[in-house]
Amino acid sequence: MMLKGFQFSAVEAAIKKPGRKDLALIFSEAPATAAAVFTTNAVKAAPVLLSAERIAGGKAQALVVNSGNANACTGAQGMLDAQKTSQILAAGLGIAEELVQISSTGVIGVPLPMDRLTAAIPALVAGCGSAGIDDLAAAIMTTDTFPKVAQRSGSAGGVSYTVAGVAKGAGMIMPNMATMLSFVLTDAAIDPALIDRIFRSSVDRSFNAITIDGDTSTNDTCLLMANGAAGTPVIAAGTPEAEQFAGLLDEVLLDLAKLIVKDGEGATKFVEIRISGAESDADAKRAAMAVANSSLVKTAFFGQDANWGRIFAAVGYSGAKVNPDLLALWFDDVCMAKSGIFSGGDAEARGTEVLRKKEFSVQVDLGLGQGSATVYTSDLSHEYVSINADYRT
Amino acid sequence: MMLKGFQFSAVEAAIKKPGRKDLALIFSEAPATAAAVFTTNAVKAAPVLLSAERIAGGKAQALVVNSGNANACTGAQGMLDAQKTSQILAAGLGIAEELVQISSTGVIGVPLPMDRLTAAIPALVAGCGSAGIDDLAAAIMTTDTFPKVAQRSGSAGGVSYTVAGVAKGAGMIMPNMATMLSFVLTDAAIDPALIDRIFRSSVDRSFNAITIDGDTSTNDTCLLMANGAAGTPVIAAGTPEAEQFAGLLDEVLLDLAKLIVKDGEGATKFVEIRISGAESDADAKRAAMAVANSSLVKTAFFGQDANWGRIFAAVGYSGAKVNPDLLALWFDDVCMAKSGIFSGGDAEARGTEVLRKKEFSVQVDLGLGQGSATVYTSDLSHEYVSINADYRT
Repeated sequence: MMLKGFQFSAVEAAIKKPGRKDLALIFSEAPATAAAVFTTNAVKAAPVLLSAERIAGGKAQALVVNSGNANACTGAQGMLDAQKTSQILAAGLGIAEELVQISSTGVIGVPLPMDRLTAAIPALVAGCGSAGIDDLAAAIMTTDTFPKVAQRSGSAGGVSYTVAGVAKGAGMIMPNMATMLSFVLTDAAIDPALIDRIFRSSVDRSFNAITIDGDTSTNDTCLLMANGAAGTPVIAAGTPEAEQFAGLLDEVLLDLAKLIVKDGEGATKFVEIRISGAESDADAKRAAMAVANSSLVKTAFFGQDANWGRIFAAVGYSGAKVNPDLLALWFDDVCMAKSGIFSGGDAEARGTEVLRKKEFSVQVDLGLGQGSATVYTSDLSHEYVSINADYRT
Repeated sequence: MMLKGFQFSAVEAAIKKPGRKDLALIFSEAPATAAAVFTTNAVKAAPVLLSAERIAGGKAQALVVNSGNANACTGAQGMLDAQKTSQILAAGLGIAEELVQISSTGVIGVPLPMDRLTAAIPALVAGCGSAGIDDLAAAIMTTDTFPKVAQRSGSAGGVSYTVAGVAKGAGMIMPNMATMLSFVLTDAAIDPALIDRIFRSSVDRSFNAITIDGDTSTNDTCLLMANGAAGTPVIAAGTPEAEQFAGLLDEVLLDLAKLIVKDGEGATKFVEIRISGAESDADAKRAAMAVANSSLVKTAFFGQDANWGRIFAAVGYSGAKVNPDLLALWFDDVCMAKSGIFSGGDAEARGTEVLRKKEFSVQVDLGLGQGSATVYTSDLSHEYVSINADYRT
């Protein structure tokens, strides 16, 4: 990993229970140009409110994140706790409080165990540089079963730079956004006028195109920090360098988004849903999301049942303009239905073969126009129910 | 059962597989004033299209319904099959084809087994009057575990009359509507100018206020037939008799709607979601539906986990206007949270006690206005996954 000018640290604060590192730090040696996208949920966790206020300045130098407790629905005390955490951290690092971003993920409605959290901060600060990005990825996990890291390299003005990111899922994954945290770091220098727009557009094509169960959480945060430590010239809008950077950012975010779906709670399948032939891209996304969120479709995936009728039904109630007689559907390259009806022949047998795979695609052509969209989802398994029925206990 | 002038019949046509009665008939001795509400899904099954066209005349005398095959996504052949079925039935009964309503429920995308279906119609017609309303309720079941019947009595002009209905669920239950069939019959005489309006309003407060999984099917049909055989005067709008009839209709439909939720696929809990203090009734319904459809909330119900935070999160993303600091929540009469935060004390223990019950209520007060709504839902269990993963096999 060649990412320059960023240091990591991870310690055990026993936020929910002891036994693993659950408090982590990203520290940039210099203040970084930064952008963030937060949950659209009207009920926002305290760290989200605080970080959103601070990111408006376009700068960040550190991020502190805990897993195990979301510090959401915790009222005025929750905000005081978030402020105090970042205050102690800023003092320890010797930076301005406004440059500290703060994230939390875990159970909702329970106050943060501030005694254990503040007690762990000195070790967190002291450990700065002792951890790798993999440790950061591991420390932010909740029901995730594996850490999620992605990276790419590019160059600007003859200088190489890196884009690297981590993410956590794994339930409540839904556009706009979900209990999803992702922190993306680059040592390229990015024009402050460009960073927010480029980041939002990348998030739309990645994290806002995945869904596990249609729930949108109180804590979602996606943060990008660009510290310029690689020594690149400042990448500005309208240049080939900006285009390259945007492409790399897309790749890193899409990698992370797909990893989140693959690690969806109880997921046994990774399914790409492609809608084409819609009247508009917005209609296509509506239809894709209806399919991707349908419990009936997702249980059929789990059961490896080539039940294309449920998919047509989901498209039908999605709100997208649909002419039932024009619908066509493929599982990978197997055409299951055309002109709204079953293709016949050996489609059933071949479609079932596709659904036995761990990864496959569903394509629905609406036959109306040029609109298209792609989203990623998982199946709905017994394990999903077990995980979420028992999460707090 | 005192319902006059209606006859029932049910036979085995082995639509999906042999072993049970899966084809049923309602026959009114005289043409009845009728109204119907159908699925809002853009993908509508052939019998829905045909019945909707016919009900525009405001009259019906017979209904034929099969379970095991939805005759949906079956194209032009599906429509021919629906027409042929009703044609043979009309000839057998000696009535006009336009007076035959037709319903189907079951697997999507598979053509009706017309040989077996048409072969069974003579016995169906011959058996007219040999079956009770319970047999009708049983014959329309798919994954339902028990038949659903409700009835009430009223009187108009000193003459007693009955309102009786049957329904089937049990998955894909969602407003506007779901794989839900309900047939409601009365021997009162209802003014044709009144029946449609009164029926739609009743459906809104009952079947459109329940949800199992947020899916809306291709076949939903809710039919009301009023044949006047009891000898009541014609009940017209604006009279106390109309008000009484509307009240009884509400009760029958709500009884049936609640039975559907109780028999929701894999349901182990029956939960009433009440939202109060919303800016409008529409906002309240939006919030109630978001809670009722959240997989995370429903798995918490299954796990008997008093996870009020997930409920606040669902309210937060519902689209309803929400001020997080004003939210309050009760499980039955146990206040779990006030002013957006945990109530403390023994609320956790007492709330958990409530969730151990088979039936309980969740009330969320948004603290903003006078809007309110009530919806009914179930939990999301392992059994739901099993049923829907294996449905076609």
